[in-house]
Amino acid sequence: MKKSKWIWYPGSFELYHGMLLHNRRTSTRTYENGETRSVYYYPMWRVDAPRHNARLTKTATIDKEETIEFFSNTDTSCLVIDDMKYNSGSKITLPAGTHTVTMCGFKAEGFPAFYCIGDTFATDRSWVVAENDDNSGRHAGESELYTSLEDNPEIFKFSYKRQRPISCEKINGGMLFDLGKETFGKITISGLDTDEVLFVSLGESREEALDVKYANIGLNVKPKNGKYTSHAVAFRYVFVPVVCENCRVSVAFEYLPLKNKGAFKCDDALVNKLWDVCAYTMLLNSREGFFDGIKRDRWVWSGDAYQSYFVNYYLANNNDIVKRTMRMLRGADPITKHVNTICDYTFLWLSSIWEYYLYSADADFVVDIYPEMLDMWRFVEARLSDDGMYERKSDDWVFIDWSTFDSNGPICAEQMLLARAYECLAKCAEVVGDTEKAKYATSRYEYIKEQINKLYWSDKKGAFVDDYKSGRENVTRHANIFALLFDYTTEDRKNSIIKNVIYNDKVTKITTPYFEFYELDAMCKIGDFDYVSGMLHSYWGKMLELGATTIWEEFDPTKNGIEHYEMYGGKYEKSLCHAWGASPIYLLGRYALGVYPTDAGYKSYEVKPSLMSFKKIEGKVPTPNGDIFVKISNGRVTIKSSIDGGALIIKDRKYKIEKDIPLTIKY
Amino acid sequence: MKKSKWIWYPGSFELYHGMLLHNRRTSTRTYENGETRSVYYYPMWRVDAPRHNARLTKTATIDKEETIEFFSNTDTSCLVIDDMKYNSGSKITLPAGTHTVTMCGFKAEGFPAFYCIGDTFATDRSWVVAENDDNSGRHAGESELYTSLEDNPEIFKFSYKRQRPISCEKINGGMLFDLGKETFGKITISGLDTDEVLFVSLGESREEALDVKYANIGLNVKPKNGKYTSHAVAFRYVFVPVVCENCRVSVAFEYLPLKNKGAFKCDDALVNKLWDVCAYTMLLNSREGFFDGIKRDRWVWSGDAYQSYFVNYYLANNNDIVKRTMRMLRGADPITKHVNTICDYTFLWLSSIWEYYLYSADADFVVDIYPEMLDMWRFVEARLSDDGMYERKSDDWVFIDWSTFDSNGPICAEQMLLARAYECLAKCAEVVGDTEKAKYATSRYEYIKEQINKLYWSDKKGAFVDDYKSGRENVTRHANIFALLFDYTTEDRKNSIIKNVIYNDKVTKITTPYFEFYELDAMCKIGDFDYVSGMLHSYWGKMLELGATTIWEEFDPTKNGIEHYEMYGGKYEKSLCHAWGASPIYLLGRYALGVYPTDAGYKSYEVKPSLMSFKKIEGKVPTPNGDIFVKISNGRVTIKSSIDGGALIIKDRKYKIEKDIPLTIKY
Repeated sequence: MKKSKWIWYPGSFELYHGMLLHNRRTSTRTYENGETRSVYYYPMWRVDAPRHNARLTKTATIDKEETIEFFSNTDTSCLVIDDMKYNSGSKITLPAGTHTVTMCGFKAEGFPAFYCIGDTFATDRSWVVAENDDNSGRHAGESELYTSLEDNPEIFKFSYKRQRPISCEKINGGMLFDLGKETFGKITISGLDTDEVLFVSLGESREEALDVKYANIGLNVKPKNGKYTSHAVAFRYVFVPVVCENCRVSVAFEYLPLKNKGAFKCDDALVNKLWDVCAYTMLLNSREGFFDGIKRDRWVWSGDAYQSYFVNYYLANNNDIVKRTMRMLRGADPITKHVNTICDYTFLWLSSIWEYYLYSADADFVVDIYPEMLDMWRFVEARLSDDGMYERKSDDWVFIDWSTFDSNGPICAEQMLLARAYECLAKCAEVVGDTEKAKYATSRYEYIKEQINKLYWSDKKGAFVDDYKSGRENVTRHANIFALLFDYTTEDRKNSIIKNVIYNDKVTKITTPYFEFYELDAMCKIGDFDYVSGMLHSYWGKMLELGATTIWEEFDPTKNGIEHYEMYGGKYEKSLCHAWGASPIYLLGRYALGVYPTDAGYKSYEVKPSLMSFKKIEGKVPTPNGDIFVKISNGRVTIKSSIDGGALIIKDRKYKIEKDIPLTIKY
Repeated sequence: MKKSKWIWYPGSFELYHGMLLHNRRTSTRTYENGETRSVYYYPMWRVDAPRHNARLTKTATIDKEETIEFFSNTDTSCLVIDDMKYNSGSKITLPAGTHTVTMCGFKAEGFPAFYCIGDTFATDRSWVVAENDDNSGRHAGESELYTSLEDNPEIFKFSYKRQRPISCEKINGGMLFDLGKETFGKITISGLDTDEVLFVSLGESREEALDVKYANIGLNVKPKNGKYTSHAVAFRYVFVPVVCENCRVSVAFEYLPLKNKGAFKCDDALVNKLWDVCAYTMLLNSREGFFDGIKRDRWVWSGDAYQSYFVNYYLANNNDIVKRTMRMLRGADPITKHVNTICDYTFLWLSSIWEYYLYSADADFVVDIYPEMLDMWRFVEARLSDDGMYERKSDDWVFIDWSTFDSNGPICAEQMLLARAYECLAKCAEVVGDTEKAKYATSRYEYIKEQINKLYWSDKKGAFVDDYKSGRENVTRHANIFALLFDYTTEDRKNSIIKNVIYNDKVTKITTPYFEFYELDAMCKIGDFDYVSGMLHSYWGKMLELGATTIWEEFDPTKNGIEHYEMYGGKYEKSLCHAWGASPIYLLGRYALGVYPTDAGYKSYEVKPSLMSFKKIEGKVPTPNGDIFVKISNGRVTIKSSIDGGALIIKDRKYKIEKDIPLTIKY
């Protein structure tokens, strides 16, 4: 028997769990009568539902008779074989010959899913959609998490571990429990003396948990026999607003059991600690999809996820979560707004598909998502200006970063991302064999790159300006960083950018780890590794000094005390566990260990390691077919790789890396 | 306090119940081991779900403080007033002044609905959509069925009445129960000797119920303590395949308590009986929406519903069910196929909105549905030929009728319906004040009418032909009937059509009550009432003679015995209770009683009664503001109307009808 998987209409699994997770946000409100309560927080974009109907089919020829057993998660379903219909639970023997087997189902709540035990007709991606309105031949959706008949694709398969506080303190007429570090899970409070409704405030910081009215997240606790268990929430501190001797708190830590396939160690203890904190930040935010932060939104934002993909390629290297995230972001038709309503996030979504392919060689996914990618392109292009460039539409959110831009007109950073998206579209089109689209996208990409250099470059500023129409010649780091990162300008201009923008303290500094990712990636690409290791200390290191157990959403070293927790006008609105802070894992894997694919899925790859400011480094980078170990120590580089196709590059010399045979070269 | 209603994102209620009802069809299958079972039957078109997220808002100024109480059918909801958030169940006092009150909610299963008790902010249609992706200002959805806080809009509000069989017969090793006439409801079987699974076959005819393997509908009965209650099904006969003395059957008849506001009596007993049978057929099919038939599909088909609307205007005159049906048919975006996949059904859907307005004067609905109507038009026009005419696309179902057409090219009957849809679009555009669209649609309507007369008329045949390109000059009744009905050709040509098509037995006869509606409507419009009363006897009357308790889907008087029940290749696939058979109610109200609006909602109307072949007639026609009674007897016409604006027309003379004052004129 072939291994079966649960299958569904492509995207239904992701849309369903995406729908649930985008509707789990709450916020705290205090009313006139003094009561504080947790209230539902409405998502900021249209959240799509899965299809409640699905029909999937497979036609195949079998040489000898085969038995199939059909199951569905809904009784409103049937299996159709050669025009005969069967209910869920049926076992049917098919004679040798060609058969078309179709599964249909409806589920009002959740989404219909199917499972066939068999050989040729075991359910997996080889089944295709056979809808009245969709004869595109698209493949069925599946997930490596749901392979057993007992699995339920409507319940997300998390793991759980019991955690207990490291301390309990009587304070402010209540009890403050400290879990020791940021965590996420279902809180059980027991031994309460009352069954009255209590508001239990939570905090990523001690201050937040104790500041009941302003704590971002809280629980409307209605105990039963003095006991209560919450839905899953993020926190480090729990403040129970009553004192009772028998009160106990414990947590069912909820997580995805992802393995850290990547690793990094160096002689710098702070950086080693930072790597671990980044990995833990990443673990907490790696769930149904890649989340922005684990406390406040717990939403899937394309720009945030974009960076998590890169960190993932150097950490857990899990394809399934990347694909889930991309499908959640894509949503269902019709597309009426940009991804998360943010135009740059649409462009990043488009680019990320090619980059995923580069790291995974997962052509199946590119084939599956390609039609939806083209629909996204149709949406994008219908909103471009007559000159084919991006210009803000009234309902577009031009984000780029939490910073101030001259962004009402055609903003430079968006053109950069648009060009990059076309560049990636061209490559995806090649993957699926759509040569006409590849040619077209390449020409658009080259045209926009040319226009950027023609329109946005200011000789006076020696930099790209935000807007060429406004006349303000406002310079920000962002577009200039993209120009370095994507290699979209001349060497002369790049040098000018480094001098006039990057090392120019008058140009507003980046305050988010989000944009530090792009800045440091760019600086590494042009070989300025000192800048990177400097930032690891002066920026990330400072957060750790302040006691961070996970990386923050934003960090301004000039702030003090609880000022650090303020954001969006709320005292504790800032997320203290934000995935976009985990980029050091990517930067150290990509540029210190120096490992990157040069062909899809590391069919060929290079290792171009750099000590940066360290004395020795050691680590490994996961690939789809095995790990690559890299070590620099005592003036020697050692590589051990479990895959073919590698080349070690040291000081412009190339050395072939043989599979499974350690290679040691003078550094 | 103002009366509140449950409200929701417009269309959610209809899409939800539409989704459920389109997934309730089953069919019977017999397997190799001899077992017969009922199996789920997949819908033939994409079935859309409601939005699971909704946000509705209202801004108003209040002179003095007001209290509002907020409720939702989901805990994942909140009320936002002037940026403060409240949970469901909150009671809030608003000070005098201007307030924006917003309700948000999410419901994974079903759809979110809201209820506010208050005065200014009592929930009703005056609330508008405030979605991230929809700032169209569209009005909230509501229904007159859900006005109490205790109501649950996710449970359709049917009424129930207990029914018991009129006979029980031991036959074929089992027991056959006869309910005496077609019915619909939940069957309870009690007193069974076994808790083993039984297959209970049902039948609209005795033959069907007894022909276990071929009965269209059956129940997979799994008794508990010898008792079982089914989901709601349609049938007259129940065959329990075991004999046991204590076995009892009863039915919870499930129906919508619609009142027959229209009435008709004449001196012809057969016609009086027919009217009652038609009214009962209509009642059974009037549910969440207007169904095609109550046994087999129980789906909402646009063409079928189109006729039910007209019958409704002369029977229950219920606006709510018309609107529900139209919204179910419209579905959600994106539109990728014609309504029910049938192009003529799209055109009829478009036309029906204007016709609904004519009978109801419900401008609110036209305003609410107009944006969705325009999207439907965009879909239609994107698929028209370069000459602006309809030509079949590969995924279009060209239905027109169960008959044979020359329909691979640009078929005439579709152009007629397209022209009619444009004509009605122009009128709807006027209702909402979109004069540009009204002008445009009028010009398209006139152009297509002109092209029809130019391209499709055959002087040789003296009729319109199906296709002007194929060269076959095939004549069917259908397009010619539309030409008469819509008045789309000259008097000469109309006379030619009557002679060469209608009264020409060589042109294939209509076999469906569906198309008889159009044929008889057309014949009445041109004043040939004898044809109509003839058909009432020779066509409908023959069904009654064969024992029909409801009107059949199709009827061929030349068939015999169980041949009558065969359709679509199945022995009992034919529906014996099909709504499209109820048109005599419309025809008798519209042409015998002779009542019709000449301005929206009977603001002005005419009564042009005709005895047809009867000696006396008497009846009433409902209007939005009261009934109109008409009687012809002993050479005198008597009218009594409870509304203003009427005129009686007798032999080209017009008499003003005064409200509430009987008017008697010589006939």
